[in-house]
Amino acid sequence: MYDTGLDRTPANFQPLTPLSFLRRTAAVFPEHTAIIDGERRFTYRTYERRCRALASALSGIGIGPDETVAGLLANTPPMLEAFYGVPMRGAVFNPINTRLSAREIAYILDHGEARAVIADAAFDAVLGEALALAENAPKVIRYADPALAPAGDPGFEVLEDYETFVGGGDADFAYDLPSDEWNAISLNYTSGTTGNPKGVVYHHRGAHLLSVGNVLAGQLKRHARYLWTLPMFHCSGWCFPWTVPLVAGTHICLRQVRAGPIFEAIERHRVTDLCGAPIVMSTLLNAAEEERRPFDHAVNFMTAAAPPPEPVLAGMREAGFSVTHVYGLTEVYGPAVVNDWHGDWDTRGGPERAALMARQGVAYPTLEALAVLDPQSMAPVPADGETLGEVMFRGNVVMKGYLKDRPATEKALKDGWFHSGDLAVVHPDGYVQLKDRSKDIIISGGENISSIEVEEALYKHPAIATAAVVARPDEKWGESPCAFIELKPGREPLTEEEVIAHCRANLAPFKAPRTVRFMDIPRTSTGKIQKFKLRALARE
Amino acid sequence: MYDTGLDRTPANFQPLTPLSFLRRTAAVFPEHTAIIDGERRFTYRTYERRCRALASALSGIGIGPDETVAGLLANTPPMLEAFYGVPMRGAVFNPINTRLSAREIAYILDHGEARAVIADAAFDAVLGEALALAENAPKVIRYADPALAPAGDPGFEVLEDYETFVGGGDADFAYDLPSDEWNAISLNYTSGTTGNPKGVVYHHRGAHLLSVGNVLAGQLKRHARYLWTLPMFHCSGWCFPWTVPLVAGTHICLRQVRAGPIFEAIERHRVTDLCGAPIVMSTLLNAAEEERRPFDHAVNFMTAAAPPPEPVLAGMREAGFSVTHVYGLTEVYGPAVVNDWHGDWDTRGGPERAALMARQGVAYPTLEALAVLDPQSMAPVPADGETLGEVMFRGNVVMKGYLKDRPATEKALKDGWFHSGDLAVVHPDGYVQLKDRSKDIIISGGENISSIEVEEALYKHPAIATAAVVARPDEKWGESPCAFIELKPGREPLTEEEVIAHCRANLAPFKAPRTVRFMDIPRTSTGKIQKFKLRALARE
Repeated sequence: MYDTGLDRTPANFQPLTPLSFLRRTAAVFPEHTAIIDGERRFTYRTYERRCRALASALSGIGIGPDETVAGLLANTPPMLEAFYGVPMRGAVFNPINTRLSAREIAYILDHGEARAVIADAAFDAVLGEALALAENAPKVIRYADPALAPAGDPGFEVLEDYETFVGGGDADFAYDLPSDEWNAISLNYTSGTTGNPKGVVYHHRGAHLLSVGNVLAGQLKRHARYLWTLPMFHCSGWCFPWTVPLVAGTHICLRQVRAGPIFEAIERHRVTDLCGAPIVMSTLLNAAEEERRPFDHAVNFMTAAAPPPEPVLAGMREAGFSVTHVYGLTEVYGPAVVNDWHGDWDTRGGPERAALMARQGVAYPTLEALAVLDPQSMAPVPADGETLGEVMFRGNVVMKGYLKDRPATEKALKDGWFHSGDLAVVHPDGYVQLKDRSKDIIISGGENISSIEVEEALYKHPAIATAAVVARPDEKWGESPCAFIELKPGREPLTEEEVIAHCRANLAPFKAPRTVRFMDIPRTSTGKIQKFKLRALARE
Repeated sequence: MYDTGLDRTPANFQPLTPLSFLRRTAAVFPEHTAIIDGERRFTYRTYERRCRALASALSGIGIGPDETVAGLLANTPPMLEAFYGVPMRGAVFNPINTRLSAREIAYILDHGEARAVIADAAFDAVLGEALALAENAPKVIRYADPALAPAGDPGFEVLEDYETFVGGGDADFAYDLPSDEWNAISLNYTSGTTGNPKGVVYHHRGAHLLSVGNVLAGQLKRHARYLWTLPMFHCSGWCFPWTVPLVAGTHICLRQVRAGPIFEAIERHRVTDLCGAPIVMSTLLNAAEEERRPFDHAVNFMTAAAPPPEPVLAGMREAGFSVTHVYGLTEVYGPAVVNDWHGDWDTRGGPERAALMARQGVAYPTLEALAVLDPQSMAPVPADGETLGEVMFRGNVVMKGYLKDRPATEKALKDGWFHSGDLAVVHPDGYVQLKDRSKDIIISGGENISSIEVEEALYKHPAIATAAVVARPDEKWGESPCAFIELKPGREPLTEEEVIAHCRANLAPFKAPRTVRFMDIPRTSTGKIQKFKLRALARE
């Protein structure tokens, strides 16, 4: 009887989407400041109207539902507008990592089939190269930041200046919620374990729920003041572009992550929340005296990528920050695990407290299940803090899949779990701690670097016989790539500098190894490279 | 390309349900206090295990998925356990208003097809009568509160004592999340505009989302301490039985809503949040000096049913409470509209502030749309603060429908909106204000009374020719029923007392009129009773 005459209707069933968040906040708090960008301020009314105008203008150039609009943008208003304006048109936003090489950007534009790209003039050079390399170059809508010196001739065809483009759209554009909450909302390329980046597809339902999870896990308050120290091209900015309107908060833009501007924003705009890799914490702690600013309000720092080391945690606490440790991957919308803090842990001594905080923790409130399983048997490892297993995720904040890659999607989502490739233990209290990142990933300054991709670049050098790249602990960057090389017999010896220069010519510069060692690479009896031995050597 | 190879799988699609909330909190904060009931304390580990045991025991007596388990309970641990334990079995919990008459309870037991009822021994008398009246009496699981004097022989067959029943269940019972988030989770009978109560069905998706809405609208904090001054049989306790575990909070039980125990709980347990009808606020403000307790922490009071009058608001503020005004109906899971407060309204003068707070407000963060429409044309009324329209709701926190009543469901959900029957205006800032409750509803002490139902009882008296019942403002109860009566010609005159006594014999006593007037009832030219004239007379 509970299934009869009780069907879904438009009255009682609507798609979950973050579009509802902005629509509601623009209606309820229209005069509240949505965006601060230098001296500019946008109210929620203006912000929503600009998003509508962007959606309308995209429609005007023929962009339709389920088509891709890319962004090559800094943490500026056009980026925030694209996160809402593109899906308001039913289209899919693809924010691209601005630190990638032209070749990588070209690959993404082609693979994602972007019909248009909104690009900051600061990235003209790399975009120009990428457009030349791309098989199907998208239309370019170019953003010239009014706070910067006028940009020169880009050297490629521009459809329209961003402000002109948005100005030509209809700010009253009537948009619908998505026809299905499973529809794609954004496309996020990851450096996975293979050389070519994979296009991780997020949907409206997941973006809605991860945003709710951010509020609950981060304990975001009404009218939070959120500083953009995390690149928005990372996992759609951990969904914070959508989360901030859910709490009627204020986005504070930041083009470059430097200590002075961060402290200035904290003081001037009374920032309550910010996110970033541990390198942002180091940047703050190593700030020069003249860059620092005093503040006496609560500031929450959500950090991921690598466990915060004890001196950094102690330093952050002394500096007045409250740190929340989260963990995730592009495939789970950014953070989907949180070190949910127990009040009584505050009373523990420094090292014990740091050890507790170094753990990745437990499922986000909106992740249905987190587990550490034996990947063969799919049985949970014992909660003994010692037995290694693979971290697996199940729930609504797991990606829709990899774009145009059914085999990789099926492999990643097989047996009812997303297989992260990360190795971890479970402590007796159920908190998960990573023991090894996925074997092929190096996390440097918050960026994922695929060791396989670096190896492929190394193999392009005619003198290199074997190359193996692993992560090396790096005080500044968290980790950096360390290359082990066997030269081809009879070749002239190479120098470390020559190898690094070769990689910088073939890769995004930040992916080049920082250390190179020439030696006989240890192998198993079946000839497989023993990376765990290389990791140990890299630490020496 | 965004629809190919990107399907739902168990890895990336799971049903939304509040069951996830308890499961997560029991895993993350197992030692945190979930329930305080007098001197008893249950941790989250214990609470979840008791819910599992209840689910197991229900399974043991043959209760299966989609079957109904009723509750006739006070705000005590068994009620909180039923809200989770019953759906853990896949069954549907039907909390029954304990103030109803035996006849009404019998109707609900029959209509809802309850297979079992968990009942507090305090309600033995009315339950015994109801069981005798019911066509298919459910099995009784009887709860004898250890804090009360031992209950005597109930006079009806009891399957088992509640503690024995739960004690016999398996506390490790492995429950599944619902197979579909659209599955029913609870059944809530409302006094609607017609005499027979309608069974409003809630589903897992809506219960999950309304809970998230409660946290956002009420700004509930991690480890909130929630005092149960709202009956949990009202709209499933506005979904707070499910909401509190979402923030790993503590339920503080309260059998009777009196000023002394409320103040005592606030002081002793440092209550942070409570809900209730305005009568609860009056109870607090009118407390005797010896009942009051000082407190210096923030206490949020969420109130609904009638706009709080200015002196009450001022009094609550002075007493240290922060008041949030919400509005809803059983059909929208309780509160689905909130007077979202603007910071700068705090600076307004008392009367202006009270006028602002008297407004019902805007959509809950998890309600997709709220509108005031002309019910004929379905066009929105102008936002002029004057034009009346009908309040309509659209979204995921609108009921699944009325149980076994397809015509009423279709009528209530027609044209893509839930039609509330309430009349309201929209102010220029978009905030909604009720101008008239649905014409046939009287809200007395937070309880809905159907005027039609009272009229039907009056018509059973052989001397009454015409009866019309409207709401009369009542200082203590908010509203009370006022009956206008035309006697049959040639009959002996009736007294007010006789009419009231007749109603008390035929209705739940709280529904009986408190005022009776004998007169010629005003009618339109077509003979329709002019209730608006009666309402004016009732106010005199």
